[in-house]
Amino acid sequence: MTQAVQDASATEAKAKTVVLSVDAMGGDKGPATVVAGLARFLADTPDAKAILHGPEAELAPLVTKRRIGDRVTIRDARDVVKMTDKPSQVLRSGKETSMWSTIDAVKQGEADVAVSCGNTGALMAMSMLQLRRAEGVKRPAIACLWPSRNPSGFNVMLDVGADIRAEADDLLAFAMMGASYARNGLGLPTPRVGLLNVGTEEHKGRAELKEAQDLIVRAAPAGAFDYVGFVEGGDLPSDRVDVIVTDGFTGNIALKTGEGTATLISTLLKEAFNKTFLSRIAALLAMTSLMRLRRRIDPRRVNGGVFLGLNKTVIKSHGSADETGVAAALSLAYKLGASGLSERVAARIASAVVLAQDGLTEDAENRARAKEEDPQ
Amino acid sequence: MTQAVQDASATEAKAKTVVLSVDAMGGDKGPATVVAGLARFLADTPDAKAILHGPEAELAPLVTKRRIGDRVTIRDARDVVKMTDKPSQVLRSGKETSMWSTIDAVKQGEADVAVSCGNTGALMAMSMLQLRRAEGVKRPAIACLWPSRNPSGFNVMLDVGADIRAEADDLLAFAMMGASYARNGLGLPTPRVGLLNVGTEEHKGRAELKEAQDLIVRAAPAGAFDYVGFVEGGDLPSDRVDVIVTDGFTGNIALKTGEGTATLISTLLKEAFNKTFLSRIAALLAMTSLMRLRRRIDPRRVNGGVFLGLNKTVIKSHGSADETGVAAALSLAYKLGASGLSERVAARIASAVVLAQDGLTEDAENRARAKEEDPQ
Repeated sequence: MTQAVQDASATEAKAKTVVLSVDAMGGDKGPATVVAGLARFLADTPDAKAILHGPEAELAPLVTKRRIGDRVTIRDARDVVKMTDKPSQVLRSGKETSMWSTIDAVKQGEADVAVSCGNTGALMAMSMLQLRRAEGVKRPAIACLWPSRNPSGFNVMLDVGADIRAEADDLLAFAMMGASYARNGLGLPTPRVGLLNVGTEEHKGRAELKEAQDLIVRAAPAGAFDYVGFVEGGDLPSDRVDVIVTDGFTGNIALKTGEGTATLISTLLKEAFNKTFLSRIAALLAMTSLMRLRRRIDPRRVNGGVFLGLNKTVIKSHGSADETGVAAALSLAYKLGASGLSERVAARIASAVVLAQDGLTEDAENRARAKEEDPQ
Repeated sequence: MTQAVQDASATEAKAKTVVLSVDAMGGDKGPATVVAGLARFLADTPDAKAILHGPEAELAPLVTKRRIGDRVTIRDARDVVKMTDKPSQVLRSGKETSMWSTIDAVKQGEADVAVSCGNTGALMAMSMLQLRRAEGVKRPAIACLWPSRNPSGFNVMLDVGADIRAEADDLLAFAMMGASYARNGLGLPTPRVGLLNVGTEEHKGRAELKEAQDLIVRAAPAGAFDYVGFVEGGDLPSDRVDVIVTDGFTGNIALKTGEGTATLISTLLKEAFNKTFLSRIAALLAMTSLMRLRRRIDPRRVNGGVFLGLNKTVIKSHGSADETGVAAALSLAYKLGASGLSERVAARIASAVVLAQDGLTEDAENRARAKEEDPQ
């Protein structure tokens, strides 16, 4: 398929209605905030609909107030997964929760993508149980967008916390999944993939990373990505790479360190501008520029960890997301639903498994490529 | 010993001359920058002297030009460790290098602390070979200062790259060493220690971290620190904790991620202020406040990774350090040399080993405490 034909089919895909399955419960700010975010998202996205999960008596007035009843179906669920619930306990007794219902709608094919602000561990456990891992995936991963110097403004990093460990073959699967996400979510035809390590030299770092590197180098042609080698923490916000692959322990710590550093700097910046009368005037004059910067690095804009490696796409929104954050997570869900990400990722991983079995022939590469481009 | 007596002996310790052993070579900017930084440091610190290592013919004119010949002894060393040299190769053939000579002066007792801008791996390998690990230390660690919301403006994090692995007992040693560093470097009598993990809940994270936590909890009274529990990436710049303990792989990635994020934001901030005529005027008005913020988060101010767990203290300055950066690393070295850090750390670790053998009795705690407070 040529690039032009691919672009045309992407446009066509966007024209169909995308249905999002939205968990109204479990966020720190309650269902009113989720419904407000949903209303804002729907106003911006005419060809989207939603199934909203939670206690009907609580949700119906919120939906009526926002006047989105014609595009939102409420599905009654009386229980809520709490932030303190353990995943194992939720799997045993959580079938009446809004979270379970949210994933179920995707499983049944009624919706394209699931979105929840709730407990990450519980959401991953329920998603794995209901949606199952894609063929060839041992460990699913959570991918996040990271503000960067790249033209799109973002890099993809995974895993940021689905699992605390990853073997070499998991890191290979993450590379394939991350590249598909960057292709469909950021519109990059051939994403550049890097493996996070403590040095870019060949002799540095953990042995399992060298093994993973060998696997990723071999898979790059079939995965339709460029492998750029080891990258360091300092490269996360750079334009050297589009997809950063790491285990969930390291990725989670890097993600939270980056967020913490950004928060510290913006607090100090605010204090600096409040210090003197002159600096307060300066802040007024620079308002537009500062707001532009703020939007650029606003964590709410990049809200949404994407669960990859399952048979359907699930998005975890920040528990503390406000209306803007919820709307951002829903927009991301819409984009990935419209591009058919989950089918593409599944095809890509399955092809990697086929390749590993067949050995890497030119023919196999072409088959794999054709399979992702036309998942039907 | 009472707090007052301790304070008095600290003042007394500061009155004696501290001799720094300084590697003039190996930095990206060459020996002229190191000598310039040394001159600035000496001007600010009347009771310090230095032994400067490198090719005498090259260094003598630089020292004369800066008029610091009366306080600086040049020690001729013809070879230089390059950034690309492998540690193993340097250990075999590096005895004529300025780096070897720098560490040797500390080993021979001619200087109190060694400072080098050179190759980290080579510096650690040579330091371990010449200075030997302190009793009870299996893996030395590199500690860095991290800008934070704490009153001192900094937290201590270790290990940030000495070794890519750490077992539970290494993490215990890091906690002891980091607490001693915070006590002597930041002046905190009872530092708060946290263990870096992906969640603060007891059931989250890697099994070896839970094991390390048990060891650290038991050692806290003898180590004269408070253990605050698991901390997350977002806590690194916070005021919840003073010392963050982690393995060298995770610590290095967190350090570089934090630096990269800070660099991205300051670049974007500069761009925002250059965008319009109005914002340029605003930048002028806010100059003082912005410079204050810049100084606060300037990585050059926190220059200097401290090698802990050896019988003497070695400081690794950033390879790209400029005059300000070199002076900052030398000031840190002076402070640690004046406080007798290496002796205190060694005593502290040795006491932990004793405690582990004896079991934790009130008596043993007191012995350990007395030993650190009065290392002679």
